[in-house]
Amino acid sequence: MQNLAHRLERLGTETAFSVAQAAAAWKAQGNTVFPFHLGDINIPTAPNIIEAMNRAIADGHTGYCPGPGIPQLREALAEDIGSRRGITFGPDNVVVMTGGKPVITKFLQAVMNPGEEVLYPNPGFPIYESQIEYLGGTAVPYRYVPTESGFAIDLDQIRASITPNTTAIIYNDLQNPISAESTAAEREAVAKLAIEHDLWVLSDEAYFETRYEGVSSSIAALPGMAERTVILYTFSKKFAMTGSRLGCAVAPLQIAQVLSKLNTNDESCTTHYVQWAGIEALRGPQDSVQSMLDVLKGRRDAACELVNAIPGFQVAVPQSTFYLFPDVTEAMERLGHSAVGDFATAALHNTGMSFCTREHFGRRLAGEDRQYIRLAYSGIETADIRLGLGRLREWIESA
Amino acid sequence: MQNLAHRLERLGTETAFSVAQAAAAWKAQGNTVFPFHLGDINIPTAPNIIEAMNRAIADGHTGYCPGPGIPQLREALAEDIGSRRGITFGPDNVVVMTGGKPVITKFLQAVMNPGEEVLYPNPGFPIYESQIEYLGGTAVPYRYVPTESGFAIDLDQIRASITPNTTAIIYNDLQNPISAESTAAEREAVAKLAIEHDLWVLSDEAYFETRYEGVSSSIAALPGMAERTVILYTFSKKFAMTGSRLGCAVAPLQIAQVLSKLNTNDESCTTHYVQWAGIEALRGPQDSVQSMLDVLKGRRDAACELVNAIPGFQVAVPQSTFYLFPDVTEAMERLGHSAVGDFATAALHNTGMSFCTREHFGRRLAGEDRQYIRLAYSGIETADIRLGLGRLREWIESA
Ligand SMILES: Cc1ncc(COP(=O)(O)O)c(C=O)c1O
Ligand SMILES: Cc1ncc(COP(=O)(O)O)c(C=O)c1O
Repeated sequence: MQNLAHRLERLGTETAFSVAQAAAAWKAQGNTVFPFHLGDINIPTAPNIIEAMNRAIADGHTGYCPGPGIPQLREALAEDIGSRRGITFGPDNVVVMTGGKPVITKFLQAVMNPGEEVLYPNPGFPIYESQIEYLGGTAVPYRYVPTESGFAIDLDQIRASITPNTTAIIYNDLQNPISAESTAAEREAVAKLAIEHDLWVLSDEAYFETRYEGVSSSIAALPGMAERTVILYTFSKKFAMTGSRLGCAVAPLQIAQVLSKLNTNDESCTTHYVQWAGIEALRGPQDSVQSMLDVLKGRRDAACELVNAIPGFQVAVPQSTFYLFPDVTEAMERLGHSAVGDFATAALHNTGMSFCTREHFGRRLAGEDRQYIRLAYSGIETADIRLGLGRLREWIESA
Repeated sequence: MQNLAHRLERLGTETAFSVAQAAAAWKAQGNTVFPFHLGDINIPTAPNIIEAMNRAIADGHTGYCPGPGIPQLREALAEDIGSRRGITFGPDNVVVMTGGKPVITKFLQAVMNPGEEVLYPNPGFPIYESQIEYLGGTAVPYRYVPTESGFAIDLDQIRASITPNTTAIIYNDLQNPISAESTAAEREAVAKLAIEHDLWVLSDEAYFETRYEGVSSSIAALPGMAERTVILYTFSKKFAMTGSRLGCAVAPLQIAQVLSKLNTNDESCTTHYVQWAGIEALRGPQDSVQSMLDVLKGRRDAACELVNAIPGFQVAVPQSTFYLFPDVTEAMERLGHSAVGDFATAALHNTGMSFCTREHFGRRLAGEDRQYIRLAYSGIETADIRLGLGRLREWIESA
């Protein structure tokens, strides 16, 4: 039989799935598992959203619909996303997709040629690195440095990494996995670099409204940015709709047309009746959004306090996302671990704590000397957060 | 601003959408339109399927699920698709997708390198040509010749088109737009070529069960074929679920693993609760499938009779799909049209008949001297079929 295509050698994946598998295997052996590895939400989608979907089905919306989405949803998204960011978008700027993730590959297909360089956050959402390389580009990581309140982008390093061959930068404010949020100054500095070097920008705003204090700002709202920025928007996190697969790109018209044509080629359209559910999510009652944030905030507070009580663990309290990215360097030293993956496996087997590590979020960079893990609190109740982190503390204290 | 990526110059699309737009514009001016252009179905999805979806939502299946699909659906698909084809598949051979269409791009990404050649049917589903070229391959058309009972593949021409650089062949038995079905001998001849030249095969079986007499056979069931064939399966046509976006690839394990990894990169997974609806579609009562076929058969019979009564129109009665692909050469001559697109526009404006033409299904080949249009009867009631084709006949007769 012939070989498969060479491009597959460059295709990465989300290695975090192997953590889920290890957790499931450990649980199947009769052990308690505390699932801090999930990026998913254990809260149901609000009933009014599901009802709207069923109304759409009853109204006959079960056939194909336009590749870029139904006009009513594009309109609602343009209005909602624009008004929350202080930008004016029209429905033609919006291209509905099967989640936020498809925006990543389609953005890169639209703007990046093979051989070109794209800057991406590392640690960061692993699909950035995978898709840049898969599509023949060079994935150039930019890094974060720890600060009092969390993490800051190493702007000097970004600046030094830009070459005439750099095409785009991926920017994920309210960051997975590290929960960093840019100051206004940092956001402006990134925008300035994009404009100076004429870069396209993918602004991954998956967590724009998953926040416990303050308000989010979009880099697309800064002067000179809307025309070069594609926003990744998703219903997944805000509305507890991860399994519904609904999101969109908000893009300059020229790019929106390309994304729409890619939709027609790749999957024709996003599930028709789910789009009507999306309209209800945006325009219907918002109390379930707030109550979910209240629940998540309670979990965050519990988790942060307990994490900082573990010897050799340290984390700043993030104002957004549902991830903690504690520095665990000293705890690992105390236990005699030098590889964070081994530390995670030992934690699972000794305490039932299941979590991802820095290794699941892009390749390790030269000069990295601190160790981090990612604790997601979106899929675990506060009581289990306490129990799991309590066991982790005992285990480390007893070492 | 920078240019967009060069690969976009090679991206095609479904130009049939412009027919829908022209029809809508004509209707908006107060005219009656007979929609023979749609590949969609004006029959609702069966209630038991929708109920299963709602049960899944109530059971909490609203979160992410595995990239290749939920195990229960993969199991049901392996069983159903395998048993109807006389092939043994396991759930690991099945990769669930957001419709059948995504199988096309993902198959090509998995097996074809830039610069390689892929054979594809022309006229045929336009996304084949678009995606082969988009991904850097060379789309090599193979043609059909008219026969007493419909169309046959020009096997000599395929044979002559194979080079050492040919990687794959796309085969669409029960063909859109021409409704051709291979004889056993033709299917075997295609399989023989694939084996002799060590080609990968995409068998697009979108209409495998949309048939009015006889039973379908899959090229994958022939000796030596399962290991080189990826089947495109879809819920769209059989279950009137076009807008649900649910389908799958059935593939050798090595390719299934690649497709699954591509899912993880591109959209994470297919809408979770829609997958549970798919299980009900496969395993629940099948009477709605049969009653839809009965309706479609009535439409086919009416349409074929009326088409063959139009002077200068000629079509064989197809046993499958919901398309007619009449030869309209003489009718066009009678009306003084040499371009089939102009003929279609004139038909719309004179009779309200809206349909696609041969031009929407791949680039015209050298030496083509007959003219064809495609009439889809899946989106139009029998009464309107009679009315529309009656008007078309009057218009042509009066010329
Ligand atoms: C930073 C970031 N971007 C994008 C996504 C994609 O989410 P979805 O495809 O469900 O919208 C995620 C999901 O975890 C994420 O963390
Ligand atoms: C030949 C053929 N293949 C594939 C498809 C894809 O259909 P879907 O993506 O809805 O499964 C179609 C739809 O018209 C088709 O005609």
